[in-house]
Amino acid sequence: MNKLILAAALALPAVPASAQPSPSTPQATVGQQAAQLRDAALSDNLAWTLVEELTTEVGPRQAGTEAEGRAREWAVRRLTELGFSNVRIEPFEMPVWVRGQERAEILSPFPQPLVLTALGNSGATPARGIEAEVIGFDSVAALQAASDESVRGKIVFITHGMTPTQDGSGYGQFGAPRRQGPSIASRKGAAGIVIRSIGTDYHRNPHTGVQMWADGARPIPAAALSIPDAEQLQRILARGRPVRMRLVLTPRNTGRHMSGNVVAEVPGTDPEAGIITIGGHLDSWDLGTGAIDNAAGVAITTAAAHRIMQAGRPRRTIRVVLFGAEEVGGGGGETHFRLHRERGNVVLVGESDFGADRIWRVNFNLAPANSALADRITALLAPLGIVRGRDPANAGADLGEWPRAGFAAIDLNQDGTRYFDYHHTPDDTLDKVDPGQLRQNVAAWTALLAVAADAPERIEAIPARRE
Amino acid sequence: MNKLILAAALALPAVPASAQPSPSTPQATVGQQAAQLRDAALSDNLAWTLVEELTTEVGPRQAGTEAEGRAREWAVRRLTELGFSNVRIEPFEMPVWVRGQERAEILSPFPQPLVLTALGNSGATPARGIEAEVIGFDSVAALQAASDESVRGKIVFITHGMTPTQDGSGYGQFGAPRRQGPSIASRKGAAGIVIRSIGTDYHRNPHTGVQMWADGARPIPAAALSIPDAEQLQRILARGRPVRMRLVLTPRNTGRHMSGNVVAEVPGTDPEAGIITIGGHLDSWDLGTGAIDNAAGVAITTAAAHRIMQAGRPRRTIRVVLFGAEEVGGGGGETHFRLHRERGNVVLVGESDFGADRIWRVNFNLAPANSALADRITALLAPLGIVRGRDPANAGADLGEWPRAGFAAIDLNQDGTRYFDYHHTPDDTLDKVDPGQLRQNVAAWTALLAVAADAPERIEAIPARRE
Repeated sequence: MNKLILAAALALPAVPASAQPSPSTPQATVGQQAAQLRDAALSDNLAWTLVEELTTEVGPRQAGTEAEGRAREWAVRRLTELGFSNVRIEPFEMPVWVRGQERAEILSPFPQPLVLTALGNSGATPARGIEAEVIGFDSVAALQAASDESVRGKIVFITHGMTPTQDGSGYGQFGAPRRQGPSIASRKGAAGIVIRSIGTDYHRNPHTGVQMWADGARPIPAAALSIPDAEQLQRILARGRPVRMRLVLTPRNTGRHMSGNVVAEVPGTDPEAGIITIGGHLDSWDLGTGAIDNAAGVAITTAAAHRIMQAGRPRRTIRVVLFGAEEVGGGGGETHFRLHRERGNVVLVGESDFGADRIWRVNFNLAPANSALADRITALLAPLGIVRGRDPANAGADLGEWPRAGFAAIDLNQDGTRYFDYHHTPDDTLDKVDPGQLRQNVAAWTALLAVAADAPERIEAIPARRE
Repeated sequence: MNKLILAAALALPAVPASAQPSPSTPQATVGQQAAQLRDAALSDNLAWTLVEELTTEVGPRQAGTEAEGRAREWAVRRLTELGFSNVRIEPFEMPVWVRGQERAEILSPFPQPLVLTALGNSGATPARGIEAEVIGFDSVAALQAASDESVRGKIVFITHGMTPTQDGSGYGQFGAPRRQGPSIASRKGAAGIVIRSIGTDYHRNPHTGVQMWADGARPIPAAALSIPDAEQLQRILARGRPVRMRLVLTPRNTGRHMSGNVVAEVPGTDPEAGIITIGGHLDSWDLGTGAIDNAAGVAITTAAAHRIMQAGRPRRTIRVVLFGAEEVGGGGGETHFRLHRERGNVVLVGESDFGADRIWRVNFNLAPANSALADRITALLAPLGIVRGRDPANAGADLGEWPRAGFAAIDLNQDGTRYFDYHHTPDDTLDKVDPGQLRQNVAAWTALLAVAADAPERIEAIPARRE
């Protein structure tokens, strides 16, 4: 291990040699090679280059649009140039919703504009907008408890108290206003809904995101206010006077269009040993250039697989999948699972889709028989400052079906403290990626692949989980 | 001095008692009273209340628009309620330019939208926009050096290297692309100009700001890209292929409209002692709610004057002026100077117009005969963590004419490290104001006024400066 490189890249204290597998274990040679690959990856430039190219030369690449098609062309070309095998596209068709105009203003008592953006699948207003009184709620539960009569014809506003967490756990809990709010408001007869963005920043950049209309919920205009605007609306509502808002949202459904996954492989020497599937997603929301969500994941997993390829043929095939349409419902992940679940012999999966900040934790979802494998990976990751967690790995949005169906999975959890400052906003741009932390990600994925792809033991299935 | 309050508010180390005027000086009693007023102001709530009200109940208030009129109504009502005397409006007329649509996109080689906003007095494109090749420069000097032929018909892009400084000095040097770039580009026959925003943040919030067309420069479309967008354009230009841009900017001049200053006074007991004029500006740019620029200055100077008023009548009259139209050329400051220069007996001026962060430095522009006054003020400010600077006070944009014409001035310099992250952007909102630092400002202004308004000595004129 090159302590100087590690210390420079991560500003971590020097690591005791005991964190590595003991030279007396049978895996000693493999462990030393893996450690060398890991440390060499701390000066990786490929991941940065790929993030820079995808965000600069393609930019925003919403699923099902021609921009996502350009992202696939870029990926096929670059993966081929890099020497990957079996580079191909797995196409699928999907319905596409695109943003239109979006404006809002308080008409009374304090006239002023507000900054917002439509949520995925939002209904549209007429071009001139709608005007209605605003009714505010501090939670989805409070909206649910309100009488239909009190909500009918009004614009619902829902706030929440999301704050940053390292593991990103706030997104599940505090995301309810986006995921459930529009359908509940629609069923109660609301004219529209605006939510406090599901985010943790204080910039005038609203956070979009998908929401699906529940059964019986007619699409209504649904948007997210930037957090400063949501707090402004709360202050105005707190004055106790009726608040009227004009809301203009003109998104539209453009019909069914093509999306696709880009797949590439590092062929293994032992077809019986199975395939390791990793990746990120190629599509992004339209507002930013999708640097942290998820050019980073594309680049990290590609760069790590490339390092393994350049070090010689691994025992197991490594399959890199750059998914389409993650943001708008996960059609790419579904398609890939359907195509490969039966016919392939995938033994292990893991996705990188939580930004570009450093990996702080590893979680496993391995059979008990593979506990030694988990121990070897843990030991190899420890010098990167990565702790072992106790949660079962879930493999991310695009590969999550696999562990639910009984395939082993490993998660390398990235630090999410600032992820929801930028997530799904115009602010998701290249400057948010820290090259040093990006390299730590490549090093961790390289270490994981070096051990898992060459592990001499069988990688076992895990119990399938009933949903 | 209440060390606990100070320590809590400012997280400063406890202050040695010697930082205060010695009890043996003739000014001891005045000094003790001023110190008590200063420390009581560290729990001030009025300034926060005023910033909250102006930004919430009026919001954006561009000079010459009806929103600025609502800000004047708010100010007259609140200053009257607070007990100020002679509350009145000094009206003046001004030409008004207002923003229209603003969009830009790279057409080739990498199609994608860019985020920008028009600079003040920008010319307009047709509604469908203009399309032209982009030519990039890394400074105004480089643009100036380019041949007219190379620039003609193109969209000029200028970048710069502004980084944060505590004293805000980068704004002067790095503001040249905004102040000079458009006129130079116009004279060279450019179709339009986009600059890297004059700012120090990395958010997709462009920085607007005024620019004046030089003689012979026909108005052309002129806008600021957000900093992430400017860096994106630089990366795209760096690929070396021709870059075509579509630019849509539809601002317009709406003719002459009314603006005005709101003036209020704390009457002094001694008409011969002269008037101290302080204040901030009421108008803001249209993009944000003008919390740091400059509801804060309005609130800080009003709250400090109010504290002096509540402590009893000072010797000198304190005049609080809330200026109109600072952002678009300073018509309010000019009007006030013209009205009061001859007929009043102003002896000292100072403006608060650099955000809401803590005051770190005091600069004087006093006659040598008033050195003891400067020393007493310096001593009283030291417990607030304020150092004495060596630069002559300039009294800010609205009161700057006064020291140039020979009137004494004092500057309380605020920390500008993050000021240009938000300045003139949609992000200038209430959440950027830190209540603790705002209170330190009120305490410093209260201390300054307590000493200067009651100073027994004459406050002398200073030499007028030839421009």
